[in-house]
Amino acid sequence: MPSPLLGILGGGQLARMLALAAHPLGLRCRVLDPSPQSPAGAVAEHVCADYTDAAALDRFAQDLSAITYEFENVPLACIQHLQARVNPSAPIFPPPQALQTGQDRLLEKQLFRSLGIPVAGFADIGSLDDLRRAAKELGLPAVLKTRRMGYDGKGQIVLRPASSGETTDPLSLAWHSLNLHLARNPSAAPTPLILEAFVPFQAEASILAVRSRAGEIRTYPLVRNEHASGILRRSRAPFAAFADDLAGPAAGPRPAVDPGTLEAQAIRAATRILEALDYVGLLAVEFFVKDGTLIANEIAPRVHNSGHWTIEGSVCSQFENHVRAVCGLPLGDCSMRYPGASASMCNLVGGWPDPADPAGILSIPGVGLHLYGKEPRPGRKVGHATLVGAGGDFAARAARLEALAAASWGA
Amino acid sequence: MPSPLLGILGGGQLARMLALAAHPLGLRCRVLDPSPQSPAGAVAEHVCADYTDAAALDRFAQDLSAITYEFENVPLACIQHLQARVNPSAPIFPPPQALQTGQDRLLEKQLFRSLGIPVAGFADIGSLDDLRRAAKELGLPAVLKTRRMGYDGKGQIVLRPASSGETTDPLSLAWHSLNLHLARNPSAAPTPLILEAFVPFQAEASILAVRSRAGEIRTYPLVRNEHASGILRRSRAPFAAFADDLAGPAAGPRPAVDPGTLEAQAIRAATRILEALDYVGLLAVEFFVKDGTLIANEIAPRVHNSGHWTIEGSVCSQFENHVRAVCGLPLGDCSMRYPGASASMCNLVGGWPDPADPAGILSIPGVGLHLYGKEPRPGRKVGHATLVGAGGDFAARAARLEALAAASWGA
Repeated sequence: MPSPLLGILGGGQLARMLALAAHPLGLRCRVLDPSPQSPAGAVAEHVCADYTDAAALDRFAQDLSAITYEFENVPLACIQHLQARVNPSAPIFPPPQALQTGQDRLLEKQLFRSLGIPVAGFADIGSLDDLRRAAKELGLPAVLKTRRMGYDGKGQIVLRPASSGETTDPLSLAWHSLNLHLARNPSAAPTPLILEAFVPFQAEASILAVRSRAGEIRTYPLVRNEHASGILRRSRAPFAAFADDLAGPAAGPRPAVDPGTLEAQAIRAATRILEALDYVGLLAVEFFVKDGTLIANEIAPRVHNSGHWTIEGSVCSQFENHVRAVCGLPLGDCSMRYPGASASMCNLVGGWPDPADPAGILSIPGVGLHLYGKEPRPGRKVGHATLVGAGGDFAARAARLEALAAASWGA
Repeated sequence: MPSPLLGILGGGQLARMLALAAHPLGLRCRVLDPSPQSPAGAVAEHVCADYTDAAALDRFAQDLSAITYEFENVPLACIQHLQARVNPSAPIFPPPQALQTGQDRLLEKQLFRSLGIPVAGFADIGSLDDLRRAAKELGLPAVLKTRRMGYDGKGQIVLRPASSGETTDPLSLAWHSLNLHLARNPSAAPTPLILEAFVPFQAEASILAVRSRAGEIRTYPLVRNEHASGILRRSRAPFAAFADDLAGPAAGPRPAVDPGTLEAQAIRAATRILEALDYVGLLAVEFFVKDGTLIANEIAPRVHNSGHWTIEGSVCSQFENHVRAVCGLPLGDCSMRYPGASASMCNLVGGWPDPADPAGILSIPGVGLHLYGKEPRPGRKVGHATLVGAGGDFAARAARLEALAAASWGA
C-alpha cells in the first residue's frame, strides 16, 4: 500500500516547506511547476510543465489523494481541467472560489465589505474617467493597483495630490503606465484596476487561520509585519509582545493600540471569511492597524510568508496544519511553542551575507535557518531565519539576526 | 551555483530524517541504498545499488561536498573505495575508525575499558572452549552475542545456569546456534562472538553527543530508554524527569539513582569517546544503570533512535546537528526546547493502529508524528511519535500516545 500522494500546484519555497511538513505525516508529494529549478523539486516528485499543459496536468493528477496550491495565481482553467478530469476522490483545497477571490483585489474587497469586515474605500477602475471620478471620491493619496497578478509590491502606483505648478497629470500617467499595452494596441481591453484609499497605518498585521474538512477552525496568534519596498522584511508574533511603540505615550497623537482587541477582531474576520468560502486549509488575512483598529487589506488562500515563524514558534506549523486540513486529518495545535514565547522571522532577500556559507546566521544560538535552494538575485526571497525566545537574551539574538538579514536586503 | 550535496550511505528512516533536516540548511542530499523502496528516496536523490557496486559508488560520490552514513554496518570496503576515489574535498564523517569500532562489540568494549569508562565483564569468544572458560570466569547469566551485525536484539542469546537435571549443554547449544553455518561447512571459520556478563539493570539510558570539525562538543540531556524484545519502545528526556521509580523508597533495596550524577558520568564518557576517535558528527552511547551508576553498553556512530525526540524536544535536533557537524557548520543548541520541558517518544513498530489513517495519533494535542513510508511488517519500525510538555497535562497526553503505540507493537 503506497503512501497517499498530495499534489501541489507550484513548486516554489512554499511547496518545498509544505512537502517537508507532509513527509513525516506519511504522505508523498508531487509538484507541478514550469521551472526545472523549482525549490520543491528537491523534496518532491516534480512534473516540469506549464499550468496550461493538459497532458502534463493529467500526468500530475494521476493517483493523487488531494490537490492544493502554493500561489493564488494558478490559472482557473488549470483548476477546472483538474476538477473535470481527475479522480473525484482527489478534492482541490482550498476551494476554487477562494482562489478566484484571492486572485482579484476587487473581489477580495467586496468580500470583506459583504462580511462586515472594515476595509478602506475602493473603486473598480475600467477607464481613465473611472479613475478621475474615484480619485475625487476617495481623495488622494490613494493606490492604483492591478486587480490581478500583483505581488510583493508589483503592479501598483501610489497617487499623490499634484503639487502646484505640476504640469503632468498624475492620474493619466498612472493609468497609462499600468496600461502600457494600450499604446501598442489601442483597441485592446484596458487592464482591470482598482483604486484603494491610502491607509496611513500605525502598523501592519496578519492572522493565519486554518479550517479542517469538518469545519473546525483554529487560529495562530496575531502577527506584526514590516515591509520594505513592498517585500515582507520581518514578521513577529505574538503581536502583543512587539507593540510597545503603539501603546501609551509612544503612540503619540494616534489612538493607543490594544493588541487583545486587535487579535479578537482578526479572529472574527478570519472566521467569517473561512466560513463564507467554505474554506479548507490555511488562510492568511493581512491588515493595516489604523486608529487602534484593523482594516482588512488582502487575503492569501495558501500558506503565507508571515507564518514562516510557526515552524519553530508554534507547536504545529502553518505548513503541517495546511497539509493536515487538505488531507482530512485532525488539525494541530496553533499555540506558541511554549507559554511566554515570542518569535521573530526575517526574510533573506536578494543577496546573502555570504552565499557560500550560512555559518554566520547558524552561529546565532537557537536560530532556525531555511534556505530555499534558489540562486540569489536582487529582490528575490532566497530564505528566511527564525528565532524563538523571551526576554533580553531573545532580544539580543533577534537583533543579531536582524543585522545579518539586513545585509541580504541591501545586496 | 548549485547547493552543496551531502552523500548518505543508507536510505532508511535515519537518512530520511537527515535529509529532511539538511534541506532547510540549503543542502541537497543523495543516498545510496540497494532497496528501491528506501524511505529516504522520497526526499533525496537515490542511487539504488549495493554498497559493493564500485561503479555505483563512483556515481554516488560525484560532486559530493561531504559523505556520512546512517548505519554502522556499512562495509568498510565501501568506505575505503570512496576514500580512494572521491574528490578529496568530500570528507567522510564520522571517521572510519568510529565506524570500525561501532561495527564490532569487542572493539567497543575494549575502547570503553581503555578510556576508563565502566563496562561489564566481557570476553572474546573464538571457540566453544573459549566460551566454557569465559562462562566460568564471568559467571552466568551472561549474554553471548555476535561481534558484528547485531541490532534490535538480533544475533544474541542469554545463557542461564543449567537447571539440575537438564541434559542439554546450554553453552554448546548457544555456540552452535550462532554458528549454524559450521554444520554445513565444518571447515568454515567460526562466527566471531563475545560473551558479556549479564547486567541486572535498574534502567537503561543513552546520551547523544555531537562534535564539530573544529572539535567543539555539545551534549543533549540524558535519555531514559525502555526496550521490549530488543527493540526500543520508548525514550524519555531529560532522564531526571522520569526517574521517580529509581529514587528513594521506590528504588527498594537497590541504591537510589541521582540523575545529575548519571548525566555527568555520561557526558564524561561521551566526551572521552568523541575525542579518542577524533569524531565528527552525532554519537549515541547506550548505558545500563546499575547500583546507581552507569555501565557503558554500546555506541552508535550515527544519529540514533533514542534521539528522535530531539526533533520536537530540543532547540536543534540530532539530525540537524549531525548535518551541521559533518558539513563543517556551527553546532546548534542541544537544550530542551524550553526550560522545564520533557519529551516522550514512542516507536511505532510492526503494525499500526490503522495503517490507512494516522488520525488517531494526530488527534493527540501537540503530537509530532513521523512516519517513514515503510510497509508495515511484524517487528519493523514504521514510525515514531513525540510529545513535549510538562506537568499533568503532558502526562495524560503521553499516556494516550503510549496506549496507541502499544497497539502497534502488539500487531
